Amino acid sequence: MLPNRARIADPFWTSYERLVRETVIPYQWETLNDRVPDAEPSYAVRNFRIAAGVEEGSFGGFVFQDSDLAKWLEAVGHSLASHPDPDLERQADELIELIVAAQQPDGYLNTYFTIKRPDMRWKSLTHCHELYCAGHMIEAAVAYYGGTGKRKLLDAMCRFADHIDSVFGAESGKLRGYDGHQEIELALVKLYRATGNERYLKLSQFFIDERGQQPYFFDREYEEGLFSPWTEDGKSGKPDNAYHQAHLPVREQTVALGHSVRAMYMYAAMADLAQLNGDRELLEACRRLWENTTTKQMYITGGIGSTHHGEAFTFDYDLPNDTVYAETCASIGLIFFANRMLQVEADSKYADVLERALYNLVLAGMAQDGRHYFYVNPLEVWPEASEKNPGKHHVKPTRPKWYGCACCPPNVARLISSLGDYVYTVNEQARTVYAHLFIGSDYETVLGGHTVKLRQHASLPWQGDVKLEVSLPEPTRFALALRIPSWCTELPRLAINGEVTDYSSGVKAGYAHIDREWSDGDRVEWLLPLSAEWIEAHPEIRANAGKAAIQYGPLVYCLEEADNGKPLASVSVRRDAPLRARFDSELLGGVVAIETKGRKRTTDGWSGQSAYRRSGSASGAASSAADIPLRAVPYFLWGNRSGGEMSVWIRVSDS
Amino acid sequence: MLPNRARIADPFWTSYERLVRETVIPYQWETLNDRVPDAEPSYAVRNFRIAAGVEEGSFGGFVFQDSDLAKWLEAVGHSLASHPDPDLERQADELIELIVAAQQPDGYLNTYFTIKRPDMRWKSLTHCHELYCAGHMIEAAVAYYGGTGKRKLLDAMCRFADHIDSVFGAESGKLRGYDGHQEIELALVKLYRATGNERYLKLSQFFIDERGQQPYFFDREYEEGLFSPWTEDGKSGKPDNAYHQAHLPVREQTVALGHSVRAMYMYAAMADLAQLNGDRELLEACRRLWENTTTKQMYITGGIGSTHHGEAFTFDYDLPNDTVYAETCASIGLIFFANRMLQVEADSKYADVLERALYNLVLAGMAQDGRHYFYVNPLEVWPEASEKNPGKHHVKPTRPKWYGCACCPPNVARLISSLGDYVYTVNEQARTVYAHLFIGSDYETVLGGHTVKLRQHASLPWQGDVKLEVSLPEPTRFALALRIPSWCTELPRLAINGEVTDYSSGVKAGYAHIDREWSDGDRVEWLLPLSAEWIEAHPEIRANAGKAAIQYGPLVYCLEEADNGKPLASVSVRRDAPLRARFDSELLGGVVAIETKGRKRTTDGWSGQSAYRRSGSASGAASSAADIPLRAVPYFLWGNRSGGEMSVWIRVSDS
Repeated sequence: MLPNRARIADPFWTSYERLVRETVIPYQWETLNDRVPDAEPSYAVRNFRIAAGVEEGSFGGFVFQDSDLAKWLEAVGHSLASHPDPDLERQADELIELIVAAQQPDGYLNTYFTIKRPDMRWKSLTHCHELYCAGHMIEAAVAYYGGTGKRKLLDAMCRFADHIDSVFGAESGKLRGYDGHQEIELALVKLYRATGNERYLKLSQFFIDERGQQPYFFDREYEEGLFSPWTEDGKSGKPDNAYHQAHLPVREQTVALGHSVRAMYMYAAMADLAQLNGDRELLEACRRLWENTTTKQMYITGGIGSTHHGEAFTFDYDLPNDTVYAETCASIGLIFFANRMLQVEADSKYADVLERALYNLVLAGMAQDGRHYFYVNPLEVWPEASEKNPGKHHVKPTRPKWYGCACCPPNVARLISSLGDYVYTVNEQARTVYAHLFIGSDYETVLGGHTVKLRQHASLPWQGDVKLEVSLPEPTRFALALRIPSWCTELPRLAINGEVTDYSSGVKAGYAHIDREWSDGDRVEWLLPLSAEWIEAHPEIRANAGKAAIQYGPLVYCLEEADNGKPLASVSVRRDAPLRARFDSELLGGVVAIETKGRKRTTDGWSGQSAYRRSGSASGAASSAADIPLRAVPYFLWGNRSGGEMSVWIRVSDS
Repeated sequence: MLPNRARIADPFWTSYERLVRETVIPYQWETLNDRVPDAEPSYAVRNFRIAAGVEEGSFGGFVFQDSDLAKWLEAVGHSLASHPDPDLERQADELIELIVAAQQPDGYLNTYFTIKRPDMRWKSLTHCHELYCAGHMIEAAVAYYGGTGKRKLLDAMCRFADHIDSVFGAESGKLRGYDGHQEIELALVKLYRATGNERYLKLSQFFIDERGQQPYFFDREYEEGLFSPWTEDGKSGKPDNAYHQAHLPVREQTVALGHSVRAMYMYAAMADLAQLNGDRELLEACRRLWENTTTKQMYITGGIGSTHHGEAFTFDYDLPNDTVYAETCASIGLIFFANRMLQVEADSKYADVLERALYNLVLAGMAQDGRHYFYVNPLEVWPEASEKNPGKHHVKPTRPKWYGCACCPPNVARLISSLGDYVYTVNEQARTVYAHLFIGSDYETVLGGHTVKLRQHASLPWQGDVKLEVSLPEPTRFALALRIPSWCTELPRLAINGEVTDYSSGVKAGYAHIDREWSDGDRVEWLLPLSAEWIEAHPEIRANAGKAAIQYGPLVYCLEEADNGKPLASVSVRRDAPLRARFDSELLGGVVAIETKGRKRTTDGWSGQSAYRRSGSASGAASSAADIPLRAVPYFLWGNRSGGEMSVWIRVSDS
């Protein structure tokens, strides 16, 4: 059964939901139909028309182009669930007719292989994203069914999943393989939850169990003359199993390695299976991979993946701020993983990371206009270097328009339009409802046979006041577990029906458990102390040595050239520099800015005729710094004003 | 006429000269003959045997493989000049027989084109290093003639140059082109100096004048279906003229751009021509390019070229320490350029850079065993990142063995074996002999018709005492101009025949001019104050913000993990930290080490379970640093003990 979703009604997030609904989804529909001037054509809808036989032509776009359309449809499904829109629904229904028309009699669906390489079906799992595309269409089908109750695409995807199940498996005669890009695994779990058909759960388990077993599947494909859609001659180099997280059986993996989006999608599926099957060994692997990812390989913004070479993880504590990758999609995958872990075991560390990635990295991925996106999310930008140093070409100082490879924008859209899935989880045995995120919303669940409704009011990220109203048909005992965010400098204050309440004895794994008989109309106030704080990085993170960052509640801040001039590297602060949070309604649509005092090295005494000098000389550095006011803005809004320098980490002068 | 060369006899440099003579040259000969086990074959000698018709087979190695052999032969020529060695000379004579046998009847010589692509002769200047190889063989011929007086190769190369002159030129029917990799230009100047034949000077001038004129020559080659030896199908992408410094006429160029070795070789030739032709416009271009290269795009080590993508310059002040390229060959090219500028105008800024690149970068390029070489010379190394972060794969933590593309090792060999060319220059009109480098040596020149001999004793880099003895047949008036190194913290002390002498009125452009009637047996003492100094970088160099480096005389120092633990990023010093220089006879064969006190962040209070924390917390960073002793070693010797971390720039805690 699919879990209930909270309906968002929040002063901060509602505007993002609206942006997705009113701008991103329509704009994306135009791009999928090749109707945006000056943008590369997507070919996504056209490919389906050709595969369905209603248009002539050849396949266009990437081998995984179908997934763009699937992700759009998934976002539409989520959006319709909370905001019915007959016109949008009609558009989607027509698209689903087309998709189903493109499906082959045996249930197979993939326009690349149907149009261009029918001979290669299931023959290049390493490179062709064939099951990845299937997974996205399954996720779309489940979302659309959830949003509208319509089964047409869901039924079609069950036929496709049945077909996949007939092709892949451990049984003799079946293909003992898996996809180069994980995604089908978590999608099949969703399909299982939506239909109750255990066949899909088992198929997901097969893919997870098989991965990384020897002899390696991708090596076997390679030995049989692996086809690649990425080279002119169709030839493939030897696959790098670690890039696909297929170098070891998943239960033996201990560190996050390889392509970061693939890793996250796989870990999320592993957590799903650990939960549904009570698989302790798999859960242990998930915990290890979580710890490694989030405590050794994650940026303060919630970004993951340190290198653009393979969009990949590198190794522990290697977190360069300027040559970083930190793809938006990877952090969305991290949120999926966190969400699954919270369903297995409520520990605030998962929600802390989820919130960090959501408020900082994912939001940074999208411009305030909803039409420009970062794929790469740097923590330090020098625009001239992005232009002129090839090692930084991938780091853009401003958000580009929708790309040809449009993975990130539709991923942002589907996440934000399903944000209500991330606010609460329920442990029915323990009769506990966990509030992980503090986002204004309406939520309904069933605990011990009683329908419990929670209306939440929140004022994050600018203020920390949270209120919850309980609606119940009759008094009911259950625990409301409120997350104590790691960014709270002191414990939040709790008041129940206006009375301040001590909850210290009920704190478990970062949640305040309020276990009582609740009555209709009970009011809970949860007051989160919000203040600006200096943050330091682990000494092993060499890139941040001698530097500090600013956080205010869940938000990471940054310095921008627009406020502080350049070079930002010349700016430093004393470790005890006071931070002042001030709401500025004129700035970036209204934000809390953080003000402090800094010092800036000047070029006094530098003739421009040398690059180095003795610092003991009369005009040495000690005297050539000036006091300046500094203003930091939320990282998620950087690059909305100019293409100037930006830096999250600020040099600290010890004193 | 070729200028006289000083004969090196120096406690520091003689051992390098010997290393080149006794180890590098013989070892390199083995590699050129494919006789080194476990090393990639060079094919260089074999290619000549095939081209000469004494062996059957196909061409091996890179398109520029001939140049490796030429550079070896050049080093041999230089070495024989100072250290006759009949066996080596016989070996070289035999090789020259072979080279001449491979020369074509029209004078042409290039084994790649003779063996493999005779149809492509002079048809892919963009990519094929055809004139580059010619230039290196000409340099070899001049050096061998200089070292032995034998003309066989010189005459052969005159025939080749005559052939080139018949092919290239502005005249109708000739090819108005130039090479993708500059080198022929400076070689032809050397050939002119050796032979007095102005045809070679004019041909060099043609190549320099033609470069960057529109329509672009490389574009014309491209439009005619440019062949590339670098792609499987032989097809070429559109040439990047800036990469080859062919984007603008050379006189209009203002910033160092593109492949850094090509740039330096070209600038050196430009300076040669500016001097020989009194070409003011060309000289102005040289000055501009010098200023840009050395004051905006040079590392403190004398390294140039910030990116491995194209082994190229990026832009002003972009000098990352860890993703750096700073190829050994590029700094050798910078030394060539500096040497030529000193011949045009004696200004100590040229010699300062020459010395910086020589003592730090070039020497760092070679291991103490003479058999391992850095091509890339980083200022900051984290070995695990070199291995696991693809953006740093090019940065090696230890010197690898001779590469397949062996450009740097023979370049080091030919530079060190001709080091005597860099010590002095003479301005005959002004009757001045300039001492640029302080290296023990014997030098002889003619001033105003009199033979002047200078014997220099020096103790650099460890001590600053320099002595010069003048030998003269009869008293002669001339000026001895002694460089005042930029690293002197106060003016050097001068004593003539034991008497301290005030020279302050005779300081011009960084040289103390001692203009007097000199007598046989006059003794000059030039006492350079040597001390360890903190150096800071220009505020626009973002990579060095808040950091300082240590210099002791001409030497740049670095911290190594072997002495100071890791991570080195955790180490900081106060700006007023005292530096103590101490000679340690046990360390790295005997060096002055610099000792100071530092602080090191500890991991106290870090659980390993988080990457970030509030720095205001009880166990904050302020309290979690420990005082430690620090020891810095000369940069040129880094990586001779271990594959650990290394850093030139050290974080400074202001206070």
